[in-house]
Amino acid sequence: MAKGTVRRLVAEALGTAFLLATVVGSGIMAESLAGGNTALALLANSLATGAILVVLILVLGPVSGAHFNPAVTLCFLIRREISTSHAILYWLVQITAGLAGVMVAHVMFSEPMFSASTTSRTGIHQWTGEFVATFGLIAAILGTIRYRPRATPWAVGLVIMAGYWYTSSTSFANPAVTIARGFTDTFSGIVPLHVPAFVLAQLVAAVVATRVFAWLLAEGEK
Amino acid sequence: MAKGTVRRLVAEALGTAFLLATVVGSGIMAESLAGGNTALALLANSLATGAILVVLILVLGPVSGAHFNPAVTLCFLIRREISTSHAILYWLVQITAGLAGVMVAHVMFSEPMFSASTTSRTGIHQWTGEFVATFGLIAAILGTIRYRPRATPWAVGLVIMAGYWYTSSTSFANPAVTIARGFTDTFSGIVPLHVPAFVLAQLVAAVVATRVFAWLLAEGEK
Amino acid sequence: MAKGTVRRLVAEALGTAFLLATVVGSGIMAESLAGGNTALALLANSLATGAILVVLILVLGPVSGAHFNPAVTLCFLIRREISTSHAILYWLVQITAGLAGVMVAHVMFSEPMFSASTTSRTGIHQWTGEFVATFGLIAAILGTIRYRPRATPWAVGLVIMAGYWYTSSTSFANPAVTIARGFTDTFSGIVPLHVPAFVLAQLVAAVVATRVFAWLLAEGEK
Amino acid sequence: MAKGTVRRLVAEALGTAFLLATVVGSGIMAESLAGGNTALALLANSLATGAILVVLILVLGPVSGAHFNPAVTLCFLIRREISTSHAILYWLVQITAGLAGVMVAHVMFSEPMFSASTTSRTGIHQWTGEFVATFGLIAAILGTIRYRPRATPWAVGLVIMAGYWYTSSTSFANPAVTIARGFTDTFSGIVPLHVPAFVLAQLVAAVVATRVFAWLLAEGEK
Repeated sequence: MAKGTVRRLVAEALGTAFLLATVVGSGIMAESLAGGNTALALLANSLATGAILVVLILVLGPVSGAHFNPAVTLCFLIRREISTSHAILYWLVQITAGLAGVMVAHVMFSEPMFSASTTSRTGIHQWTGEFVATFGLIAAILGTIRYRPRATPWAVGLVIMAGYWYTSSTSFANPAVTIARGFTDTFSGIVPLHVPAFVLAQLVAAVVATRVFAWLLAEGEK
Repeated sequence: MAKGTVRRLVAEALGTAFLLATVVGSGIMAESLAGGNTALALLANSLATGAILVVLILVLGPVSGAHFNPAVTLCFLIRREISTSHAILYWLVQITAGLAGVMVAHVMFSEPMFSASTTSRTGIHQWTGEFVATFGLIAAILGTIRYRPRATPWAVGLVIMAGYWYTSSTSFANPAVTIARGFTDTFSGIVPLHVPAFVLAQLVAAVVATRVFAWLLAEGEK
Repeated sequence: MAKGTVRRLVAEALGTAFLLATVVGSGIMAESLAGGNTALALLANSLATGAILVVLILVLGPVSGAHFNPAVTLCFLIRREISTSHAILYWLVQITAGLAGVMVAHVMFSEPMFSASTTSRTGIHQWTGEFVATFGLIAAILGTIRYRPRATPWAVGLVIMAGYWYTSSTSFANPAVTIARGFTDTFSGIVPLHVPAFVLAQLVAAVVATRVFAWLLAEGEK
Repeated sequence: MAKGTVRRLVAEALGTAFLLATVVGSGIMAESLAGGNTALALLANSLATGAILVVLILVLGPVSGAHFNPAVTLCFLIRREISTSHAILYWLVQITAGLAGVMVAHVMFSEPMFSASTTSRTGIHQWTGEFVATFGLIAAILGTIRYRPRATPWAVGLVIMAGYWYTSSTSFANPAVTIARGFTDTFSGIVPLHVPAFVLAQLVAAVVATRVFAWLLAEGEK
């Protein structure tokens, strides 16, 4: 494998693992301190996730593009900005690294390595939430990389932070994140059986958003 | 209709719908989790709204100007930076899309499509609040687009986030948002009968602020 | 008076009034919703104040320099970047507008026009807090305007937001704000008799910080 | 000693002292107001710390590089971007100034000058947390200074803010901060006996992260 490809895959692995460690770790910390006040726990969880996303994209964007997300990689595959073989490698790395990130969070908080989540997240209303959340994420990326690429890390962090609140599903918006969160029976978990429908909604949204924004930004003026 | 005009109207529709989905959706989520602590619910509501505004303006600003707000469109009409016919189209789209956004939020949270709000928001003190909030919003826009256009999305997000707290009306500052929030009997609603006075205060403030800043920035040095 | 001078004074007036309306207004709103949880009230109060400062400095900085603060004007007077006569006009306008801002907040929240505060804020520990807070504010301004002037609005908003928490006095750091807050018997008030010692600590800190940073930044490399 | 060196050391001293005054001061303020809700206290503590870091690095970065952290100085020593003699001076100043900052916080909040902490922070899970936190901090610095140096202050503030939540140790990530926090028996303290293991984990992480990012960013494209 070319050296540049290895670097890109390591960057995707580092970023996705760090993202999951933050989502799961801050969820555990926030819930354990919040004394039953779920709004407060979600507030800390959403701010920590948004903040780390900004940092990870600033840091690793120049290396791998900072996808950390199979839906985002799918978007760039549709746009032919990544080759099919690279996209497949990205997907494998993202999913594996997501699991590793959950493990790191569990080690940091003395939890068992993995545990199947028992938090139910299902139903048309939550799938709609995932569609809207992923549509918003792709919009944030495609809308900024064209005219304001320096703003992309901020747009992604903010759209996910807000997404924790405006969607009923708390905005997973990422198949690798969704799969990994199936393996933590803590604040941010999701029953493994409920994962596939979330992932499907996310991938459909990625395709739709990619098409919509290809048209919408086709002749936009600066 | 010219292709460029359609694109601009779609951008206004997407942005206004997303804004309302966030305002209403995050209000429902925050209230349902906050266990009766309204300050915590408003904090989450205000942060989510401010965050999504930054993203939407970054993403759609280059396409339509990212008004999402009849009072803002009025301001640019006074400044002759948009034609009367386009302004009317913008207004229609903003109001319609605002309602669509409320509907999306209701679908995501398993609420009925529409329901008249029962949250009373009226009185001279709240109308003063709307005047101040809208004056501040127009100031944030006109004050930044001249010398620091890259800061406009941030200024708008921050002025609205702060506005949730410094005005007694929680800073609607947008006739399309106000009308749409008449149709949700949740955290962010407003009794439909109380809508017209809010809208009037907002439009008056838009006119006054446009005039004041036209004079104030006329000879400002960089 | 020259037209440019009038514009600058109007900008100082608008900004200082808006700042006070936000400090006092968000304090009233936050306290009334927080159900006795002062930490939550101060969190909302500090975020709203920081946010509005960023906006006001972005918007009015190009017109008047966006001091809104006699201690900041004193700093620029020492540096001979403002004339004595202009500094005196700035001071008068800042103090008057601060009072007007309190009045606006009171109108928005149906409070009496003015009311002497009964919140005691005194003692060497709080005066030390005001010294540290004002030193930090002047550092944030002088440290950024030289090499990163675009960051000044953000540095000021963040240093004041943090100051609400790291000082025992909640970081007034502004004589016009301190005087005005003597006239509101709400969350953000200060007993009028305790105002002079706060103002003195602020002015001393402004002088010291101006001298320290004149030396520290004298030969700094970019 | 050369005048430039004195300036750099004063900048390191000012910055590290201010950082500790904020960490400890905001911890005391937040805990005293939060009425036993630790999540709320940590939220205020983490936001204030993140905010002040952005400001301090913006302001003092052009003078001393704004390390404020022996682990960061170690990283630049490995990269040969600071001489050994300067590194040793930086370390001495950082540790001394950290203690001074704790003292300032204690004066502001009427606490005794120093008091040994009784807050236990130990165990493999917390040391893992410190490793991850410091790795993330070095990543944020090295990843941004190469391609986006203007974003470094923001990346550092955000990674530490998030770190308060995603690590079980609340992300000290700084030997000078860790030592200083041994001397405050308040919210942010750490039992002095638990300090050495934290510092060791931080220094190991600094070395590892410096190596990893030297390789990862070696051929990164802009």
